[in-house]
Amino acid sequence: MKIIIIGAAGTIGKKVTAALEKDHEIIRVGARSGDVQTDITSPASIEALFKRTGPFEALVSIAGDVHFGPLKDMTDKDFRKGIDSKLMGQINLVLAGQHYISSGGSFTLTSGSVGDDPIPLGANASAVNGALESFTRAAALELKRDVRINVVSPAMVEDSPGYFAFFPGYIPVSMDRVVGAYIKSILGARTGQVFDVR
Amino acid sequence: MKIIIIGAAGTIGKKVTAALEKDHEIIRVGARSGDVQTDITSPASIEALFKRTGPFEALVSIAGDVHFGPLKDMTDKDFRKGIDSKLMGQINLVLAGQHYISSGGSFTLTSGSVGDDPIPLGANASAVNGALESFTRAAALELKRDVRINVVSPAMVEDSPGYFAFFPGYIPVSMDRVVGAYIKSILGARTGQVFDVR
Repeated sequence: MKIIIIGAAGTIGKKVTAALEKDHEIIRVGARSGDVQTDITSPASIEALFKRTGPFEALVSIAGDVHFGPLKDMTDKDFRKGIDSKLMGQINLVLAGQHYISSGGSFTLTSGSVGDDPIPLGANASAVNGALESFTRAAALELKRDVRINVVSPAMVEDSPGYFAFFPGYIPVSMDRVVGAYIKSILGARTGQVFDVR
Repeated sequence: MKIIIIGAAGTIGKKVTAALEKDHEIIRVGARSGDVQTDITSPASIEALFKRTGPFEALVSIAGDVHFGPLKDMTDKDFRKGIDSKLMGQINLVLAGQHYISSGGSFTLTSGSVGDDPIPLGANASAVNGALESFTRAAALELKRDVRINVVSPAMVEDSPGYFAFFPGYIPVSMDRVVGAYIKSILGARTGQVFDVR
């Protein structure tokens, strides 16, 4: 299977890549690393990615920035950081990628637990994650040729200790379980699902 | 109570306005109608609105456009219609309005049932509604001075027969129940809630 992994060098991306690279052809994509460099905030850059890869069986996106900061200081410009990157970046991967993906292929996006279990400073991330989950449910109704779409919603992961202080009371989730959710989406049969890893 | 109603001339807005105008001072806001004209896609226009209204006790937003159309033809530009209008319009009303709202005041936004009960052609609306609901949960954690925020999520309403064909199997919800959800948000005590009207 030819699998495009956006964010292959990230905390989660590198473990998902490691789990898949023995049995599949992986195209590693990053903003500044990997086999292909793509700026997901640019629809033109995304189109160029697919023109280069050609048809593929799975796309996994574990990428996109959001703004973290106090609501009281938040501006339209701050909020657009997550909208333009993690939200529209991932949505544009699907809107463009639907024209290149092979029949029976799958898209797997990434949201995060703050969509429904919010924390202070996280309003931008919450909005972006909620949008990605609702988009996934809706897009699954319209994708043709047996193409599937799911979204993985990880809580704080054990490999990101720098975030622990922002999530009091959260038990870090194991990377094995997070990786498992991506594998389940890619190699399983479900569509339109939010795979919570909590 | 001084209540700002964005979209006061709309299908839902006019009934919410009618229910509140006997007991409260209503400031009717529309893109091209009402006491004040405001373009919610423009942060400058929103700021000008609050400079004109001064402090207020409640803001109700029942406004914003989305793109309806097939996923297979959808582009970044199409998708931005809902992002810039219904999503960022309502979020910017809160980001700016938090600096003008009176202590103990409330924001009431509007999402819609397709956020979790999607229909074909509605991917943009789904994403926008999901984002608004997650934003509301998160913003409630950070609003100070006892300011509250909720979002009303109406299904297809009885006063919009033009939409019935897009929602097979849905039972149109009564306007009384929809108006009730807004009143509950404004005059009640809950915060961070999604008031589903299904």
